[in-house]
Amino acid sequence: MNAINIAVAGLGTVGRETVRLLRARRAELKERLGAELRLVAVADRAAEREARALGLPASVVRYRDPLDMVRRAEADLFVELLGGLETPKRFALAALGRGKALVTANKRLLAHAWPALTHAARAGGARLAFEGSVAGGIPVLRALELSFSGDRVLGLDGILNGTTNYILSRGEEGATPEQALAEAQTLGFAEKDPRLDLSGRDSAQKLSVLAGLVTGGWLRPGAFPVAGIESVTARDLSFARERLGMAVRLVASLRFSGKPAAPAVAAAVAPTLLPLGHPLAAVRRQYNALLVHTASAGDLMFYGQGAGAGPTASAVLADVFVLARDIQGGLPGAAAASRRLRLTSPDHAVSSYYLRIEVLDRPGALARIADALANAGVSISAIHQDPASGRRSVPVMIITHPAERGRFERARKRILSLSSVKPAHCAMRMMA
Amino acid sequence: MNAINIAVAGLGTVGRETVRLLRARRAELKERLGAELRLVAVADRAAEREARALGLPASVVRYRDPLDMVRRAEADLFVELLGGLETPKRFALAALGRGKALVTANKRLLAHAWPALTHAARAGGARLAFEGSVAGGIPVLRALELSFSGDRVLGLDGILNGTTNYILSRGEEGATPEQALAEAQTLGFAEKDPRLDLSGRDSAQKLSVLAGLVTGGWLRPGAFPVAGIESVTARDLSFARERLGMAVRLVASLRFSGKPAAPAVAAAVAPTLLPLGHPLAAVRRQYNALLVHTASAGDLMFYGQGAGAGPTASAVLADVFVLARDIQGGLPGAAAASRRLRLTSPDHAVSSYYLRIEVLDRPGALARIADALANAGVSISAIHQDPASGRRSVPVMIITHPAERGRFERARKRILSLSSVKPAHCAMRMMA
Repeated sequence: MNAINIAVAGLGTVGRETVRLLRARRAELKERLGAELRLVAVADRAAEREARALGLPASVVRYRDPLDMVRRAEADLFVELLGGLETPKRFALAALGRGKALVTANKRLLAHAWPALTHAARAGGARLAFEGSVAGGIPVLRALELSFSGDRVLGLDGILNGTTNYILSRGEEGATPEQALAEAQTLGFAEKDPRLDLSGRDSAQKLSVLAGLVTGGWLRPGAFPVAGIESVTARDLSFARERLGMAVRLVASLRFSGKPAAPAVAAAVAPTLLPLGHPLAAVRRQYNALLVHTASAGDLMFYGQGAGAGPTASAVLADVFVLARDIQGGLPGAAAASRRLRLTSPDHAVSSYYLRIEVLDRPGALARIADALANAGVSISAIHQDPASGRRSVPVMIITHPAERGRFERARKRILSLSSVKPAHCAMRMMA
Repeated sequence: MNAINIAVAGLGTVGRETVRLLRARRAELKERLGAELRLVAVADRAAEREARALGLPASVVRYRDPLDMVRRAEADLFVELLGGLETPKRFALAALGRGKALVTANKRLLAHAWPALTHAARAGGARLAFEGSVAGGIPVLRALELSFSGDRVLGLDGILNGTTNYILSRGEEGATPEQALAEAQTLGFAEKDPRLDLSGRDSAQKLSVLAGLVTGGWLRPGAFPVAGIESVTARDLSFARERLGMAVRLVASLRFSGKPAAPAVAAAVAPTLLPLGHPLAAVRRQYNALLVHTASAGDLMFYGQGAGAGPTASAVLADVFVLARDIQGGLPGAAAASRRLRLTSPDHAVSSYYLRIEVLDRPGALARIADALANAGVSISAIHQDPASGRRSVPVMIITHPAERGRFERARKRILSLSSVKPAHCAMRMMA
């Protein structure tokens, strides 16, 4: 084939940067591939205006409707950068259904429509790539797909959300969560509505993509425990650093078990205390990182900018190149098996826990809290109580010995039901 | 093709682990590949004994001579894990000459025979992969090859040698270089003869492989400045940490310029002072890391265990899988162009420098040192002189403002020629 025809849907910041790079790197890509990567169509509500601004030649067909483009454009490879869920899903299924290669950076689409997408890819003999959907420009998916082929991935721990990491790491430098969020919004990488980030749901979607890639099965985003950083305060961050010598990060974790043909996974997104020497503790600001635990290669970490038009477009273009290379070589499409992924109960995951509660200054309050922990079978490693200094309530920080999550959760609920304990609190797991 | 036939030369620790993993992961690999990876031959001076110890079936042909195997074995893919230079070179050229795929983890072979190997691969239409040769199990080469296809790699800074990194980072914890080297030897990852590591030449070979992969050209290991850590003392490490707030690492660097068709590179291996917040400063013990500077994706880092049988075998098997996939898909062999790589003069590289010298306590000594720097056009940022306390000579630490390497080198030579300055000294560049 002398040319691979490409059609790009969505000319937002990532889409425009992808088109720009595709054209700017044309000669290099052609030489490396032995075939031209030819942009033949774009789709966007403002396709005409954006195409003009990008200086696209008249030969590039403009579509206002991406679904129109995906049905009609004579492309070998479609790039989906639309945003949202329903239109991207129809777009993706239409492209794969036509047997066309699809590149997307849409984590929400992948997390929510994984079974439909992988089924359509298999049925259509079509290729599917999505490096840009997790950790932006960091090539973690390709590494997991290709580089551990002869190894076994035992688990993953990732910092997959730049906004929350910015807030937590700026907090270590003295900024309050509110200040840090405002900074991140000014710097342009935090959303105006940050709830998807702060609640951990953005990380959970990415975790679903990672689990799908490693196991071939669908990790449904709502099916595992997800906690965000809304309850983490400046007090928790300074206590962690000064008293415990630890840093707080929002860590998305997978632990794999079972045979490859019958995979099982324990999944969680949770604010996590890490020793300062832990590789993930060194990840600051809006950076992302993925720590991969393997059987043979040991622990590896991938680190870089997790978002932004440049990093994401770089990942999208790498996907385009790799799929174009497969098309060019006549390599068969998606062969990965579809698995039923079994979720292991999160209740059996074992770690130490940090619990900060606000306790009304009443006699016997601490004894009742200790009782609640003991009754659930959770033993206490340390309790720290700030001096009351005239206030009606004082913060109490409890560090537990390693305990099953189910037991800790039972104790936490019991403690919060006590009349001497206020509802506002912060619970975090600890990693060694 | 129902099976890809594999022949492995060299059954040392990496070779044995590769064979073991190849057999242990057989079912998974077959399912992912759609073809069996079948071990058909091994070569080793003790092939018979090793094959028995590995429990290989009689169908796997044993060769005592690898060159005999490479000429006769009916394999699609040869794995070279022999060690040394001459036999591996003849083995590799024979395999590629037969048009067979070759996987090697031999950095010395690649660094010294790059033009011959790439020529043979092109001439024979053969595939060549060498992930295990740099940074062990960390998939840096595949990332550079595939994941930045649409991006531009501007530069690389790597910690590519575990022994020297162990010595430097243990030094920060108070161990002397001699103690730390002995520890590393006891732990089994430092060679009995550590000169190749300590001198920086091991890192230089790996840098040559990285430059070849990024540019397609040959960076001859002797053609660029290489300094090791022999002159770095406990005093330098503690001064760096306590007075400068910096860590010392042996950093191998590449900076790319020129057009892709006429690439140029500045290369160096040098002990380097890094701010404690620098990603490479957080790399401790025997870990390796590669920091990649890209135009679109920004800075990325890959981190993991750089050596050892497990990590290296994991990388070798990933190479086997990727090449087998290409063979299976009928993808054409090595298409990468061969470039003439232009070396930019190291004299024009600009950085601040650290220079520790031993100065005899004579009047005017410091003035003559300052003169030597001024005459070379190097301006001084700080001078620190330890109290003489009755000794005949005192250490003097000089920090310069940013200066061209050529100018600093001229000043250094002039200073060492002064009668009041002893020959033992330590010079390090500084990175921001």
